[in-house]
Amino acid sequence: MIKPKVIKVKKDILHKNNELAATNRALLAKTGVVALNLVSSPGSGKTSLLEFTLTNLGRELKMAVIEGDQQTDNDARRIAATGVAVVQLNTQSACHLDAAMTKRAIDETDLDALDLLFIENVGNLVCPAGYDLGERMKIALLSVTEGEDKPAKYPKMFRNAEVMVITKIDLLPYLDFDMSACLDYAGRVNPDLKVFLLSTKTGEGCSAWLDFLRALVKEA
Amino acid sequence: MIKPKVIKVKKDILHKNNELAATNRALLAKTGVVALNLVSSPGSGKTSLLEFTLTNLGRELKMAVIEGDQQTDNDARRIAATGVAVVQLNTQSACHLDAAMTKRAIDETDLDALDLLFIENVGNLVCPAGYDLGERMKIALLSVTEGEDKPAKYPKMFRNAEVMVITKIDLLPYLDFDMSACLDYAGRVNPDLKVFLLSTKTGEGCSAWLDFLRALVKEA
Repeated sequence: MIKPKVIKVKKDILHKNNELAATNRALLAKTGVVALNLVSSPGSGKTSLLEFTLTNLGRELKMAVIEGDQQTDNDARRIAATGVAVVQLNTQSACHLDAAMTKRAIDETDLDALDLLFIENVGNLVCPAGYDLGERMKIALLSVTEGEDKPAKYPKMFRNAEVMVITKIDLLPYLDFDMSACLDYAGRVNPDLKVFLLSTKTGEGCSAWLDFLRALVKEA
Repeated sequence: MIKPKVIKVKKDILHKNNELAATNRALLAKTGVVALNLVSSPGSGKTSLLEFTLTNLGRELKMAVIEGDQQTDNDARRIAATGVAVVQLNTQSACHLDAAMTKRAIDETDLDALDLLFIENVGNLVCPAGYDLGERMKIALLSVTEGEDKPAKYPKMFRNAEVMVITKIDLLPYLDFDMSACLDYAGRVNPDLKVFLLSTKTGEGCSAWLDFLRALVKEA
């Protein structure tokens, strides 16, 4: 077996948006709105989790959604179909939301009428990790089809998140996904990470997720 | 139903690496090496496709791999296990490979001994789209678990690729993936896109992929 050569490449990424994120955070705190920044690879199930959540908590909590996508308003239309207010941000070439874009969307939102504000970031397990939008916390989704080593390979995202939601667990019987290895990788990157395992298709594991959101709003 | 508000956010991404990519391209052409830049979301199956390809073409073609990851040498170890030479590039915080990193890896590679050089980019459906590494072509993978609308939502990647490989088709019976919608989205973004549908788990569709690689080497 040939030993791989390893070259380290360092690169700085500029963070100029922290001040604006602090402004967003202060505004959200003042109005008592819990803002959650949903981050993951493309297709991990962020929009499906939102559809499930909005449908199941719609009678209890006042919610709105900011949708980040490079192109299309597909996701915003899926959210709007649940009857919840949604603002679509099309980032064009940009690979993540930033605090300035978020501010523009917040300005379109009636915060006084809200308990929970979901921000669905651009599908990207790398770049959104470094950008504070002013959210209460980042919630990182990982679908079981992506493989168990993603928390180790993209550690910044799972380190900067407070919650990991492992999605699509209904597919586990058809995959070689090693759940205990995944949880071990995640725990090594972020020992404080709170984890949910669920499938919005079957509903398995979803009640714990909904209870978690209810508790967040209650604490706010 | 509430109509979503749409805000357009424009952002420039700098491209300073085109000159160096041209240098890489000239060097690869001079030595008759076909370099393929594999791009996709995290967990779409780039490494699995490489393992399958290296194992099945190892007696016919001389191949090497450059592995791009933020962290870990997991993928490089998987490739090395096939007996093929591999250079791991750890990009740390960077969200894509660039021509300079690629140059450093090429310098570690014996091009005269090669037919095919695979470059496995960082798992990211956004940022690698804008970076020319000097490759012969970009090959974009999309796993059926990610949903059929990804070519529309991340159009730059599928526009800049010459080939789309739809992976994990063995999972189709367990998903609500609309293949014809996917091909329609992809065709609208890039009418010239060549498409392969395959599963490296069952081998279905893989012979067409291997024939495509053989033909690329023959033409070089």
